[in-house]
Amino acid sequence: MDCEEESPQTAPAFAGLDSSAADIEAARFIVIPIPYEATTEWLSGTRCGPDRIIQSSRLLELYDHVLDADISKAGIATAPVVEPVLSGPADMVAEVKREVGSWLHRGKTPVILGGEHTITLGAVQAMRERYASLSVLHLDAHADLRDTYLGTRCSQATVMRRVHELCPVSQAGIRALSLAERRYIEEHHMVTVFWPPPDGAWLEGLVASLSDTVYISIDADVFDSGFLPSVGTPEPGGPGWHDVWSILRAVTSKKRVIGFDVVELSPHGEVGDVCAYTLARLVYRLIGSIHLYNELQEASRHG
Amino acid sequence: MDCEEESPQTAPAFAGLDSSAADIEAARFIVIPIPYEATTEWLSGTRCGPDRIIQSSRLLELYDHVLDADISKAGIATAPVVEPVLSGPADMVAEVKREVGSWLHRGKTPVILGGEHTITLGAVQAMRERYASLSVLHLDAHADLRDTYLGTRCSQATVMRRVHELCPVSQAGIRALSLAERRYIEEHHMVTVFWPPPDGAWLEGLVASLSDTVYISIDADVFDSGFLPSVGTPEPGGPGWHDVWSILRAVTSKKRVIGFDVVELSPHGEVGDVCAYTLARLVYRLIGSIHLYNELQEASRHG
Amino acid sequence: MDCEEESPQTAPAFAGLDSSAADIEAARFIVIPIPYEATTEWLSGTRCGPDRIIQSSRLLELYDHVLDADISKAGIATAPVVEPVLSGPADMVAEVKREVGSWLHRGKTPVILGGEHTITLGAVQAMRERYASLSVLHLDAHADLRDTYLGTRCSQATVMRRVHELCPVSQAGIRALSLAERRYIEEHHMVTVFWPPPDGAWLEGLVASLSDTVYISIDADVFDSGFLPSVGTPEPGGPGWHDVWSILRAVTSKKRVIGFDVVELSPHGEVGDVCAYTLARLVYRLIGSIHLYNELQEASRHG
Amino acid sequence: MDCEEESPQTAPAFAGLDSSAADIEAARFIVIPIPYEATTEWLSGTRCGPDRIIQSSRLLELYDHVLDADISKAGIATAPVVEPVLSGPADMVAEVKREVGSWLHRGKTPVILGGEHTITLGAVQAMRERYASLSVLHLDAHADLRDTYLGTRCSQATVMRRVHELCPVSQAGIRALSLAERRYIEEHHMVTVFWPPPDGAWLEGLVASLSDTVYISIDADVFDSGFLPSVGTPEPGGPGWHDVWSILRAVTSKKRVIGFDVVELSPHGEVGDVCAYTLARLVYRLIGSIHLYNELQEASRHG
Amino acid sequence: MDCEEESPQTAPAFAGLDSSAADIEAARFIVIPIPYEATTEWLSGTRCGPDRIIQSSRLLELYDHVLDADISKAGIATAPVVEPVLSGPADMVAEVKREVGSWLHRGKTPVILGGEHTITLGAVQAMRERYASLSVLHLDAHADLRDTYLGTRCSQATVMRRVHELCPVSQAGIRALSLAERRYIEEHHMVTVFWPPPDGAWLEGLVASLSDTVYISIDADVFDSGFLPSVGTPEPGGPGWHDVWSILRAVTSKKRVIGFDVVELSPHGEVGDVCAYTLARLVYRLIGSIHLYNELQEASRHG
Amino acid sequence: MDCEEESPQTAPAFAGLDSSAADIEAARFIVIPIPYEATTEWLSGTRCGPDRIIQSSRLLELYDHVLDADISKAGIATAPVVEPVLSGPADMVAEVKREVGSWLHRGKTPVILGGEHTITLGAVQAMRERYASLSVLHLDAHADLRDTYLGTRCSQATVMRRVHELCPVSQAGIRALSLAERRYIEEHHMVTVFWPPPDGAWLEGLVASLSDTVYISIDADVFDSGFLPSVGTPEPGGPGWHDVWSILRAVTSKKRVIGFDVVELSPHGEVGDVCAYTLARLVYRLIGSIHLYNELQEASRHG
Repeated sequence: MDCEEESPQTAPAFAGLDSSAADIEAARFIVIPIPYEATTEWLSGTRCGPDRIIQSSRLLELYDHVLDADISKAGIATAPVVEPVLSGPADMVAEVKREVGSWLHRGKTPVILGGEHTITLGAVQAMRERYASLSVLHLDAHADLRDTYLGTRCSQATVMRRVHELCPVSQAGIRALSLAERRYIEEHHMVTVFWPPPDGAWLEGLVASLSDTVYISIDADVFDSGFLPSVGTPEPGGPGWHDVWSILRAVTSKKRVIGFDVVELSPHGEVGDVCAYTLARLVYRLIGSIHLYNELQEASRHG
Repeated sequence: MDCEEESPQTAPAFAGLDSSAADIEAARFIVIPIPYEATTEWLSGTRCGPDRIIQSSRLLELYDHVLDADISKAGIATAPVVEPVLSGPADMVAEVKREVGSWLHRGKTPVILGGEHTITLGAVQAMRERYASLSVLHLDAHADLRDTYLGTRCSQATVMRRVHELCPVSQAGIRALSLAERRYIEEHHMVTVFWPPPDGAWLEGLVASLSDTVYISIDADVFDSGFLPSVGTPEPGGPGWHDVWSILRAVTSKKRVIGFDVVELSPHGEVGDVCAYTLARLVYRLIGSIHLYNELQEASRHG
Repeated sequence: MDCEEESPQTAPAFAGLDSSAADIEAARFIVIPIPYEATTEWLSGTRCGPDRIIQSSRLLELYDHVLDADISKAGIATAPVVEPVLSGPADMVAEVKREVGSWLHRGKTPVILGGEHTITLGAVQAMRERYASLSVLHLDAHADLRDTYLGTRCSQATVMRRVHELCPVSQAGIRALSLAERRYIEEHHMVTVFWPPPDGAWLEGLVASLSDTVYISIDADVFDSGFLPSVGTPEPGGPGWHDVWSILRAVTSKKRVIGFDVVELSPHGEVGDVCAYTLARLVYRLIGSIHLYNELQEASRHG
Repeated sequence: MDCEEESPQTAPAFAGLDSSAADIEAARFIVIPIPYEATTEWLSGTRCGPDRIIQSSRLLELYDHVLDADISKAGIATAPVVEPVLSGPADMVAEVKREVGSWLHRGKTPVILGGEHTITLGAVQAMRERYASLSVLHLDAHADLRDTYLGTRCSQATVMRRVHELCPVSQAGIRALSLAERRYIEEHHMVTVFWPPPDGAWLEGLVASLSDTVYISIDADVFDSGFLPSVGTPEPGGPGWHDVWSILRAVTSKKRVIGFDVVELSPHGEVGDVCAYTLARLVYRLIGSIHLYNELQEASRHG
Repeated sequence: MDCEEESPQTAPAFAGLDSSAADIEAARFIVIPIPYEATTEWLSGTRCGPDRIIQSSRLLELYDHVLDADISKAGIATAPVVEPVLSGPADMVAEVKREVGSWLHRGKTPVILGGEHTITLGAVQAMRERYASLSVLHLDAHADLRDTYLGTRCSQATVMRRVHELCPVSQAGIRALSLAERRYIEEHHMVTVFWPPPDGAWLEGLVASLSDTVYISIDADVFDSGFLPSVGTPEPGGPGWHDVWSILRAVTSKKRVIGFDVVELSPHGEVGDVCAYTLARLVYRLIGSIHLYNELQEASRHG
Repeated sequence: MDCEEESPQTAPAFAGLDSSAADIEAARFIVIPIPYEATTEWLSGTRCGPDRIIQSSRLLELYDHVLDADISKAGIATAPVVEPVLSGPADMVAEVKREVGSWLHRGKTPVILGGEHTITLGAVQAMRERYASLSVLHLDAHADLRDTYLGTRCSQATVMRRVHELCPVSQAGIRALSLAERRYIEEHHMVTVFWPPPDGAWLEGLVASLSDTVYISIDADVFDSGFLPSVGTPEPGGPGWHDVWSILRAVTSKKRVIGFDVVELSPHGEVGDVCAYTLARLVYRLIGSIHLYNELQEASRHG
């Protein structure tokens, strides 16, 4: 019988940067599109997230005036799309773990574009095998700490519970959770910055709570829903662009970030394009900031 | 002749909370959907407001981390839809008065979802009959103090003028009004907080201007149009989520709120869903905050 | 007290044809925008209908290849918008009757753009006063023959019942009605062409059922909902462009049409623009076809 | 540990017909909403299909002029939503089989609203257990006869292959398929009416190919994409409203239909509402036509 | 000074078919995306046409049941995007001529995706240099035969006048034109099939009017606006899918087609995706039909 | 040969203020709609900007509570639309220069509504001829200082480079630019306030950098993309309503503003209406603020 599967499609490359086999070999950062959407959200469409972020990223200026650098010089290439596996979320998580693991093995920093949040579990599993002291920074409107949801322990509503079973997790931006999730946070003494944040040095505390090797998982709904409405489960009262950037800048100034994901964009219409571009810019600047840290470390080691 | 009217439809229940006859009997707060839209706005669609707010409210977490409480325990049920009466706005206002009055008679706190602002007049008429010392807090971008509009004294542009003829009104968020409305405010020494608000203790002044028994009318366009665009007559330069919540928190900490409405949502597309959810969250938290006040009062009376 | 009403706005002119006082004086056909929407439909927005039809009509070629004529030579001008009266539908119907009557008095053929169907009643009342032998051709997916609806005898669901109480009505395109409406049709021996039409000479029968002086009321939802979706209550299984045009051509070849309306367009987004243009083209060609009949009659009278 | 699952939500009832436990007990037809969407389509959103069809069905006239009957008298009630199971498509199919089986056990005719096409497999499994001589009429633009797809043998692209392994399947409307699917049809001598259909008596042949007991599965994309665009994988060149109705009328005149589904509506915006209503009307009329057949059979048995 | 131009972007390949340099070398048909939009339409957005057609073409089945062939075997590859030149339409036409000419020189059949209709002029200029006996089949709702428009002789409203100055043009689908255009057609004895077409053998006449070597220019608005609404200037009353295909089938059965374009798609929202896919399917099947003709000719030459 | 050009269309008047020849003669401020869009943006649609701003401006209250004045008393009328010239951007710039120059000659303050940013060059050319000491305040997310772009030195990406070649330019809001543009700013010692702005007295510095006679060019994308998404190239992290107003207030308090433009609105759907209204309000209040300055100067001259 002939194979009837559709062949993997080459996604257009992030920021329009060439992504031939040689480019990928040379790159430090690998953008991995994972258009997986198979558990239930309110406003569907996260499967279109990676494509729309990458499409809009063609508009990016390569130079970034805040970092005063041409970030593309960090070495960025785009991997082929990780096709969804539809036999169940556990199979998909295993697929993501395998993919991300192979990029880590080749010495790359994975930059994962979702897709629904479930994929973060596969990414952290791969990271955790490689980095024993891993901790995770989780930016989100929701705690995602349920134990089970709609018949599975593996979904976007339970993903950070599964991740927290693997390694320490610190959270910021949280403003919607169940009482059981609140109790879980308290019982496990998790560092969670609810939003609006308390007065005082919460940002320093957040950074201090992380180990030296950090994976960052950014659910697009961490942003205020008035600022970034095109997500599966929007929440008002969240941080804006400068708030989120301040957190990321603080963490990337002090910690080694070995990968990150941006998930849960659910783009519709023209507003969806605007939100996709916003996340493209966030991804690009975060790559730049991680790269600057790595270069400084490199310099000080050889200095 | 057979009756050809469509029969009243049961709306889905707010926050997915059961609303059988027994549930309604037991509830303290009654959510009343009034999808009335019959006078002219710019961007039509307010008739869809109640349905969309209630649909989106299924997504609410029952627990609210700001109040640190499961607000559903306050006792919330949803009444049948109040069907529009199309013979003219005065007839509809009379219908609303009758409906709201009957809920007051049964000892409930009405939570009215519009629909256009005109319905507030019927609600206040019912409230005023029951509470002699009533005052009204009016959050809106517009003063709504015209005397007549398009051939009627009873519309969304004149509604607060009619309300003010019944009882004291204090306003906040106002940023679009006619010169005649400005003069009316001055001549009647109304407390109106224009937006952006002045420096100083305007919030304390606003609270102090209200009597002890307060009805709150929230026109969704009080929010900045960049934050909540899906309204009939959006206005830039208004308060955001935390600003509006601060006002509501201040009032519900000091006053007995005996009912409120949220009107003029005009939801279109995915952005409309986001705005509907934002208002659902506002309604839910405001119920919680009113309930906490009532419980404290109860406790102190019996303490 | 200063008048606070908004002043009437001049609508842009149909087909971009000049509409100064002198142009109106000279014109045979007067396009009258009536953006009234005050009773309840499913998909709201008919108040935007006249504006969108007129906006899109700027794109019309003045020459029409089917009639092989420059239709603008018929003499077409656009009247000021008839502002909604919001005190109730009966008041609005009276206003429409007054407006249409005054144009008839000046010897014009009214071309009414709605707005909801209710306005047809006012137009027919004015027509009926002037033309004793008037009959009405009603193209619609719905019979609109209810006796009362949501507390009023005067709405878009009852309008043709009220019209039929004034003069004979023949219908085509009908495919959604209540049992009571079906019985009304049978009891009153109305000529109603349900859709799909029966085999045989239904069109000849329809034309023959009309008196020599005809008013045409076209509810935009007469068109199949796959062809023209932007209406308040769309219905599948209706006639297409050529079907509707065939009916109109047949009637205008045999009867004197002394006015017509096109109502119930509810335009949203780009598809709404397409539907608006389709109706603009229908209006323009129908004017042309009426004008050709009038010219032929004129010629034969003087021949 | 507290249960953290969301509780099942009561969907609004189809055609606004009461659906209390007693109503369900008395009904012959049970509308079952299954908002399952977990395998990949192009244009996502089928999870919203059942809700939008039911919402729009409130607009239906209970009387249908083509059947000249009040179809609601057939006895129609709406079941609770079948919540998605997210552990994988095979688990969901099992859940659907269980649900549908229990309704069959109670003597009801299931009317299933999807959701993605995958659910048809569970429905047919339940039907097949009860009716040994079952055959299936499949209306679709696509053959859905792939053997595997994206890692699973159980998806909307393979569903009719799985169904055909259980019982005979005849198809109509097909206009997009792979070469392997074409060969499968030929090798298995399936009766497939490609679209546009051939000249001659294809409809009689299609009806004749079915056994006396028929389940009908209607993928909404069987309709021409210009007529019904809001589906996951639209295809031009398909049948229109009257074509599809002719097929359904022919089958329901000769065969006992023991259940049917309408799947793959993916509604967006106002056009999505129009498409949802079109399918609501199709569902309602198909119920009526099945009921008329059943009554005639009943009459002849007792005649 | 550094070059500040953005570098050309590689478009995703049509039908997902590999388009490396070697693939292009081997291909017979070259899909050329030209996202040029610089003169004024009503509903803007034709610059997004090529991208949306190609994106949607990933969904195509490679096998086509009407031609009973895997069309991809014809040899299809996608060229890099032809970037707009913004210094004026004449410069852009020259650029298109150069690009198309170079593909002709390499022995390819160009398949051009626009973008606005203006680009057809450059394509025909290149074709005309190579094929002395060229004629053009023009499918469109509009005649596009104006002499000048908004200050230029080179725009989408004048393009076929310029083309007709180069070689014979036959038209079909026309239903909107100016009186001057009508006269131009008559004076130049052009074969123009207005829509709806006359009774009789118009299709045979249309085919006979063409020379043996034909270029086809398809303006997407040739389709009825109810079937394909996402175009810059939609017109009702046009041909549907099977009508257009019948014309193309007739021409490709008798004539050697040496290139074609599909222009003026202006895609918005989900309906825009549906229209884009419809055109992708048309392009694919037209390639297949041209290829079958070429193979038959080849066979008969060598037979 | 007959002229086939479409005749210029009269746009509806800004703020609904009468704009007869006499009104224009009497007015101090002339609103000039220039719906030109001919070079490439990401999200097209700027040609609809002027129309949508003017349509939404009908909703403006004539009284403004911040300035405590009826701004319409300043004398505002709307000029006919400046029709696009399509032979190339240089020709269009020349047309704009001619138009704006003629209004300056008549002693008016031009208020230009775009359309794409390219038109600013023509406006500044006309201003510069009249005011030798002109300087330009440029509010934008992008520097627009490229030297060439897509084959032309005259586009929305190069416009401020061309303007800066004519007179001094100060910028604010900038947050996306190329390295070459950054160097151009430094080499030419331009005053550019990047966003977020630095601590300190940047606003005073910005005002001080301008000469006494100022033209203001406002690209709508200067606003944060979360606040005003409907622009061609949105950028997050920008100023909000009060930020932009503060800059404009500061400049208009100290400088004579002799004209301004608001360009690059690209309105889609309901969100586009909201953004259009926001800009209408900005335009209206900026007119008011300029008028107050002029009156104060007048008063002090005559005082």
